[in-house]
Amino acid sequence: MAVGADKTENLATAAEAVRSAAAAGADMVVLPECFNSPYGTGFFPDYAEILAPGAPGGTYDALAAMAADSRVTLFAGSVPESAAVHPDADDDAVAGTDAGDARLLYNTALVFGADGSELARHRKVHLFDIDVPGKIRFIESETLSPGDTVTVVETPQCKVGLAICYDVRFPEMAAIAADAGAELLVYPGAFNLVTGPLHWELLLRSRAVDNQLFVAGVSPARDESADYVAWGHSTLVDPWGKVLGALEAAPGTIVLDIDLAAVDDVRASIPIRTQRRPEVYAAGRAAIA
Amino acid sequence: MAVGADKTENLATAAEAVRSAAAAGADMVVLPECFNSPYGTGFFPDYAEILAPGAPGGTYDALAAMAADSRVTLFAGSVPESAAVHPDADDDAVAGTDAGDARLLYNTALVFGADGSELARHRKVHLFDIDVPGKIRFIESETLSPGDTVTVVETPQCKVGLAICYDVRFPEMAAIAADAGAELLVYPGAFNLVTGPLHWELLLRSRAVDNQLFVAGVSPARDESADYVAWGHSTLVDPWGKVLGALEAAPGTIVLDIDLAAVDDVRASIPIRTQRRPEVYAAGRAAIA
Repeated sequence: MAVGADKTENLATAAEAVRSAAAAGADMVVLPECFNSPYGTGFFPDYAEILAPGAPGGTYDALAAMAADSRVTLFAGSVPESAAVHPDADDDAVAGTDAGDARLLYNTALVFGADGSELARHRKVHLFDIDVPGKIRFIESETLSPGDTVTVVETPQCKVGLAICYDVRFPEMAAIAADAGAELLVYPGAFNLVTGPLHWELLLRSRAVDNQLFVAGVSPARDESADYVAWGHSTLVDPWGKVLGALEAAPGTIVLDIDLAAVDDVRASIPIRTQRRPEVYAAGRAAIA
Repeated sequence: MAVGADKTENLATAAEAVRSAAAAGADMVVLPECFNSPYGTGFFPDYAEILAPGAPGGTYDALAAMAADSRVTLFAGSVPESAAVHPDADDDAVAGTDAGDARLLYNTALVFGADGSELARHRKVHLFDIDVPGKIRFIESETLSPGDTVTVVETPQCKVGLAICYDVRFPEMAAIAADAGAELLVYPGAFNLVTGPLHWELLLRSRAVDNQLFVAGVSPARDESADYVAWGHSTLVDPWGKVLGALEAAPGTIVLDIDLAAVDDVRASIPIRTQRRPEVYAAGRAAIA
């Protein structure tokens, strides 16, 4: 989807996309990274919301309603979150009456069930701090704090490992999710015109082949006038590493069938999950320690 | 290179390839997996040799001479190795006089320095036991035993992580080699017509991007009449994941420059090696244990 400066309009665009995907038969819908706010460290403080029922800004309630109205498992991309430093202070904060509470901002992915209840939330663990000289510089940690958990969520469809964008560059997170039983990894992500053509599809396919599961990467559409120009190219990869379907840079929706039997097929055919040699790796680690 | 049934001819082909690569300016030369023997569990017992100076069969001495004659660091692909179960028994075995010694067979990659001395040997850790129904079945462990070490070798050019073919599917080995200082991973490998088009280039590029180093995969040429038909497509990938050069299925040599500055460039630009969150991974592991 296209993401602009108007949060209400972004939420309306997302709601329409969820409705149309559900109408086309989708049981599970994934929105892109940072879809209710322009992507940029200067925007996050203004756009961040408390992510709880009834919180000001309304993003949480709007997303819960999208899932419930369309009866889908909704991976609600990610949105900037404002959270109390001390969770115990959150009661005040939710009401928005205690402006003095110390707060942190996160890049947060919410997941809702078909009844509108929250199933999980993932706060981006690896912040996007990169500097490719002359090409792209982005220091997400200027305004955001990192999450501290690997997120695996049980859905009616399957277990899903959930992480955000730059998290995809860290193979251990994906491996842990696979070991926890995930058969699909979902990455809302906004790569750019430097890293996108280099690495977006490659990383999604790498995670799929190394962990023998499905991988979805879902990006905002490209907006050449934005401060940060997203690569687009939302992509679904199967457990063999084949691209099942992908968009290009324009807004759009693809509805694809996921046949979970493919996970078992590839794992039986190329049984790397039972052929690992942990004792060899441990000795190798010890030798360089 | 093409690999046939005649070991002497295979060694002569390899020697000529090393000479021509050195004449073209190569300081480091990589031969393919199983280049002195057809690839197949039925062949390994007959072709396996003790890999020591003066041993019968002459493969070891021939390889040492190739390195010394051309003054190159020689990654001598891999060859079937016969080794005593108890290393202390090896003195007898080298002389070949004690046929009663219990022996094991390995798929072994030797590395020689430009003076002909052995720098390292890697015994394939992950044996190629796969069964893709109706497409490819190969059970390397029917005759081979697995090695038990991650191999990193110091060469005059750089530190190199060395592994063989199916080992490339196990990301932890590559990660350990990178952490030990490797700037290049070398995989002699013979993928096939099923796994080759699916995964050969993808896996080489995955290891390069996840570990931000150079990766070489070197395959026998394709021989449609062989029991096991190799994919070919020897490939060198840079630390950005770009293919620097590749052969197709026919025999051939590519000589390419490796600019090690690219390793530092990508690691400074996209500093994933310092952005890992080991405490998060440990907690994630503990949560599913």
